[in-house]
Amino acid sequence: MECGILHSSYLDMTPYAECFAAQQNELKVFLSHEVHDPLSITFALLWFPEDDFFERYPNIKVVASVAAGVDSILACPSLPEHVKVCRNRDDQQAAIMSTFAIWHVLNHQRNFPLYREQQANKVWQRQPMRAPSEVSVGVLGMGFMGERIAKDLDHLGFSVAGWRKTNKPLKDSNISVFCGSEELSAFLSRTEVLICVLPLTDETHGILNLQTFQQLKPNAYLVHLGRGGHLVESDLMHALQTGVLKGASLDVFAQEPLPSTSPLWEHPDLIITPHDASDVRPSAAVKNLIDEYLRYLDGQCLQNEVPRSTGY
Amino acid sequence: MECGILHSSYLDMTPYAECFAAQQNELKVFLSHEVHDPLSITFALLWFPEDDFFERYPNIKVVASVAAGVDSILACPSLPEHVKVCRNRDDQQAAIMSTFAIWHVLNHQRNFPLYREQQANKVWQRQPMRAPSEVSVGVLGMGFMGERIAKDLDHLGFSVAGWRKTNKPLKDSNISVFCGSEELSAFLSRTEVLICVLPLTDETHGILNLQTFQQLKPNAYLVHLGRGGHLVESDLMHALQTGVLKGASLDVFAQEPLPSTSPLWEHPDLIITPHDASDVRPSAAVKNLIDEYLRYLDGQCLQNEVPRSTGY
Ligand SMILES: NC(=O)c1ccc[n+]([C@@H]2O[C@H](COP(=O)([O-])OP(=O)(O)OC[C@H]3O[C@@H](n4cnc5c(N)ncnc54)[C@H](OP(=O)(O)O)[C@@H]3O)[C@@H](O)[C@H]2O)c1
Ligand SMILES: NC(=O)c1ccc[n+]([C@@H]2O[C@H](COP(=O)([O-])OP(=O)(O)OC[C@H]3O[C@@H](n4cnc5c(N)ncnc54)[C@H](OP(=O)(O)O)[C@@H]3O)[C@@H](O)[C@H]2O)c1
Repeated sequence: MECGILHSSYLDMTPYAECFAAQQNELKVFLSHEVHDPLSITFALLWFPEDDFFERYPNIKVVASVAAGVDSILACPSLPEHVKVCRNRDDQQAAIMSTFAIWHVLNHQRNFPLYREQQANKVWQRQPMRAPSEVSVGVLGMGFMGERIAKDLDHLGFSVAGWRKTNKPLKDSNISVFCGSEELSAFLSRTEVLICVLPLTDETHGILNLQTFQQLKPNAYLVHLGRGGHLVESDLMHALQTGVLKGASLDVFAQEPLPSTSPLWEHPDLIITPHDASDVRPSAAVKNLIDEYLRYLDGQCLQNEVPRSTGY
Repeated sequence: MECGILHSSYLDMTPYAECFAAQQNELKVFLSHEVHDPLSITFALLWFPEDDFFERYPNIKVVASVAAGVDSILACPSLPEHVKVCRNRDDQQAAIMSTFAIWHVLNHQRNFPLYREQQANKVWQRQPMRAPSEVSVGVLGMGFMGERIAKDLDHLGFSVAGWRKTNKPLKDSNISVFCGSEELSAFLSRTEVLICVLPLTDETHGILNLQTFQQLKPNAYLVHLGRGGHLVESDLMHALQTGVLKGASLDVFAQEPLPSTSPLWEHPDLIITPHDASDVRPSAAVKNLIDEYLRYLDGQCLQNEVPRSTGY
């Protein structure tokens, strides 16, 4: 019988085991703490595996991440070349991610923090209001998440552009798409609200730096939902101090959980959330892994495999 | 020459005069404080005229409101039967209104107040998240504003229904439409987030009462963008106290500006904004009035006249 493992270095994987149990198929899975023979394990659902994970499970052929990003798996030093690494694509997750991003854009567009301050001081003061068309939003990363966010914001009337690596046209929308490092400056200089949903790769590491922020329009705002490694924290602080950025929403951090000693928590112009923009539903992650593994057994092409060459 | 007046009992109408000046036409307008002959005035742009306004201007034929709602004009005791009252329809205004409403829905869907509280206490704690499809939103009033809000929320994936007076089918959407008082209960009982964008009429006065709130789903939230007269304030307080409502966002009030003595300001589960959900742009309001008045002079049907029989 084909056996799998559900494992994370810190997450409780029990909900995933329950989803597995609810599925009807011949596959068997174990939680790490259950008695099992490591050599019998041929597939895995993972989140931040320890460095030696794949040494302990030498027969694994296919792994999937519980999240959209697979960076925590690709970063595992023991990951062998031949293991197929799959990502998730879950429409509900994209809808959750997009509405999360939109809240931050609207919060900036209509300056809700000011309304909350007025309420605290019992101040009745109308504010200038901008139509969505007067706010230009730029989405860094136009993949599964970014495209959904961009299209939803376009539908609400915002002036939207996206930035991606390869030149793929985007049909049926007003969204301008910019490609590669040559077009990054043009993209930034028309952008007021910058949303980062890039994957973390060697190329995107540290992309949210002072030089990037300085090219944005006045009143610039950052919504960072990618990975902690994209952001140069000291540059962010400098940009806030000097008014290069009006504020930022951060969902991801170099160190997670964000240590209580971090100055980010208390900055009045930052909104901090606990890497919670979106989450693959356990049932979707489990279904994705099962489907991919059955395709593998059947000799078919996997549908959500991440090429090692691009790393996302 | 045809002359008009720009007048409000408390609003500064200068921006409207500037928009008039920017238009090229034969019409002449005065601000109330400018020297003019009241008998020469045949059209007006208004916002909360005083009770005797129309006695002072007996030759007025057409008036328009600076807002979408015309309740402040219809409530004027001196308004003669024969004066044509026009409303505004401005797409930008609808987009502004809709994104304002959406912020409140997302704020509830993802419980952003809890994230803000966690940040204040430096707490890193992920929260259960609901997809838009798991949140049912009900829009009271499916007119120019309500339909836009409902369609935008439907597009984002929410489960949306609307309530209106007359049975008009809504094409190309998943939105269920409920009609009239017979279908109000069915509409309320499938709704978690209730958005009020009704006009204020005899029929809708006091519609936001305890009986209404009690029919909503658990975790119910009110977003009130209509008029102060829709809401029974004591019922709202009771509903919040007893958990019938989880919270509410109020943009409109029985008395505006909301007096600093009002207990609403300090309630932790209320979000108060200063009648600022949306605003007709002065340029749009001026264009609307000019177009209507020229149609009137030309003997054509007005396009945005409000029938006195319905009052909206
Ligand atoms: N905060 C959260 O809760 C959360 C939740 C989910 C995901 N995420 C983050 O969001 C990321 C994106 O997710 P996804 O599902 O949208 O990924 P995806 O489908 O792989 O899309 C990645 C996008 O980034 C672009 N890109 C990659 N490298 C680039 C480069 N060097 N220059 C320009 N563009 C580049 C890609 O361009 P091409 O289209 O041209 O290939 C693609 O459009 C994940 O990797 C994860 O880090 C965060
Ligand atoms: N807070 C703000 O900043 C702000 C800004 C703009 C507007 N508003 C408020 O929003 C209101 C609506 O604006 P709008 O432009 O959407 O008005 P509208 O186009 O006239 O639409 C009114 C809607 O309410 C429905 N309705 C009226 N009486 C009803 C009743 N007795 N029972 C059931 N449904 C009823 C109408 O039904 P039918 O379609 O069947 O006729 C229509 O769908 C305005 O009157 C104003 O009070 C507030």
